[in-house]
Amino acid sequence: MTTALHVTPVEGLPEIQSGDDLAGMLATAALDQGLADGDCLVVTSKVVSKAEGRLVPVADEGDKAHVVEAEAVRVLRRRGDLVITETAHGHVCANAGVDLSNAPDGCAVLLPEDPDRSARRIRDVLLGRGRRVAVVISDTFGRPWREGVVDVALGVAGLRAVVDLRGAPDAMGRELQVTEIAIADEVACAAELVMGKARSVPAAIVSGLDPAWLGDGSGRDLIRPPAEHLFR
Amino acid sequence: MTTALHVTPVEGLPEIQSGDDLAGMLATAALDQGLADGDCLVVTSKVVSKAEGRLVPVADEGDKAHVVEAEAVRVLRRRGDLVITETAHGHVCANAGVDLSNAPDGCAVLLPEDPDRSARRIRDVLLGRGRRVAVVISDTFGRPWREGVVDVALGVAGLRAVVDLRGAPDAMGRELQVTEIAIADEVACAAELVMGKARSVPAAIVSGLDPAWLGDGSGRDLIRPPAEHLFR
Repeated sequence: MTTALHVTPVEGLPEIQSGDDLAGMLATAALDQGLADGDCLVVTSKVVSKAEGRLVPVADEGDKAHVVEAEAVRVLRRRGDLVITETAHGHVCANAGVDLSNAPDGCAVLLPEDPDRSARRIRDVLLGRGRRVAVVISDTFGRPWREGVVDVALGVAGLRAVVDLRGAPDAMGRELQVTEIAIADEVACAAELVMGKARSVPAAIVSGLDPAWLGDGSGRDLIRPPAEHLFR
Repeated sequence: MTTALHVTPVEGLPEIQSGDDLAGMLATAALDQGLADGDCLVVTSKVVSKAEGRLVPVADEGDKAHVVEAEAVRVLRRRGDLVITETAHGHVCANAGVDLSNAPDGCAVLLPEDPDRSARRIRDVLLGRGRRVAVVISDTFGRPWREGVVDVALGVAGLRAVVDLRGAPDAMGRELQVTEIAIADEVACAAELVMGKARSVPAAIVSGLDPAWLGDGSGRDLIRPPAEHLFR
């Protein structure tokens, strides 16, 4: 692939409420912004969760802690307020993905119940409007040995989440070692750079992706099975 | 920031040899491709290491294992051929970053000795050619709980590696919780999407970054201090 990649924020969406037709609103805004066949629409899980009504009332930090415990299927570590958890989806992240920032007053936002399904629903609406695109539902995760957070893909539709270059010859003509690239996570990172946390931009269009990356993929493809965890 | 991000591969570079004037070659190629003030040039550590002569002869896998042991300051886990290590820089990664893919025959490539210095050298050459840009030296790391690899920033010059949004109000006017974004890692991911492992494209231009992100930064800012590791 030698073409450039372009990442465009999807602007002009109102604050999303529970029950809103998010897919329809995203489709209208993204088509306005030039969404084309082969592009990937990245949508933050926060706005997906709000539209899907994944909100629980929390009065205080104690309430939030209870919600985190309820959402986690396993706690890997605790330090102070920080709880490293495994979610029902299989993601390992802080606080089971429960978040108070950008949440309606008195509420915490949970992760979407089935992020792949959320991605497929948005993709289907876009297909209905004549655009064959990929959709990624993104969230923001920390890393155990690196400072700062980066975005990852929770849900994927129409995109291969991991592209396996094992066995493809390297530039010296020898076989490459392990090179399974987490394309969907990198696409989520690229999108995050134009969305920003405090700017109410809940989606971005990534265009210029290698057409070979389009196809069936799932956010589950990015989850390492617990039996292969070296750090538990 | 409401502008789009653009990521352009830097093509036309020859296979880099030990002792090559990589900074000069990159500057010429990137200026040809329209590198402008405020852009970030992302360069793979592989090509930096080759130019800097960070190569060691290895006859077989046993030799490689010895090189990995020598490069690691600590081994966190072993499983089969996989060794999770801490490098002298402080990065936690597989095999101390020692890599055989895209290496000259009979050699392994080590990480650059001081990736920030490597980034500053390239940046200084570009400043000398009249372009005030950021430079990121990138590498490809795995993640403990996620499948596939993604790119990260090892060396940084002219860019804030981590941007702290803590305390900035969210869209609801409340204070954001922890949101320190690892901008330099996300920029490395965006660049990787146009470089590809088997295509001999060792650099990419990322343009459209928030000007507030330009400034002093270091790859060390992305390394979580061992005392704060919850997983050792």
